[in-house]
Amino acid sequence: MPNILYALGDPLRLRIVEQLAAVSEAISCGELHVVKEVAKSTGSHQFKVLREAGLIRMVPQGRRVLVSLRREDLETRFPGLLETVLQTYDRQ
Amino acid sequence: MPNILYALGDPLRLRIVEQLAAVSEAISCGELHVVKEVAKSTGSHQFKVLREAGLIRMVPQGRRVLVSLRREDLETRFPGLLETVLQTYDRQ
Repeated sequence: MPNILYALGDPLRLRIVEQLAAVSEAISCGELHVVKEVAKSTGSHQFKVLREAGLIRMVPQGRRVLVSLRREDLETRFPGLLETVLQTYDRQ
Repeated sequence: MPNILYALGDPLRLRIVEQLAAVSEAISCGELHVVKEVAKSTGSHQFKVLREAGLIRMVPQGRRVLVSLRREDLETRFPGLLETVLQTYDRQ
């Protein structure tokens, strides 16, 4: 629980999660708008934190890495949490 | 929004918030069980993070500092967020 909140407790990571929630399918890391704005190492680090917290799934596919939100898993482990965070984020 | 999640994204801070939610009124910092388990400086730091994120209110009263959860303010700013976090925490 604390590590999920910690992973969400960063503006950049929260934007990554928000964009992944909006596309609702696996997309290439590099295709996320928010990632294009930061250094590659910054992006990689944020994806690592999100993955280790169980928020996202990363699947290598050729030269790309496809990333997606683990929405169902999160809903099972922490019912309502992600949706509440996304709704609150959208309102701001 | 991210700083609220960051503040909640730590095991000790989450336990402080959970205990404050349970008492539902202002109590002395030192009376929180979780605080008795850690060094004074650690406790002070965690209270500072929680206060700066807007999660708690701290009011000096003589030699003590009374601390309380800003439940209504949080509900106004982030509807459902704190309650969802507390419910998920309790289930674990």
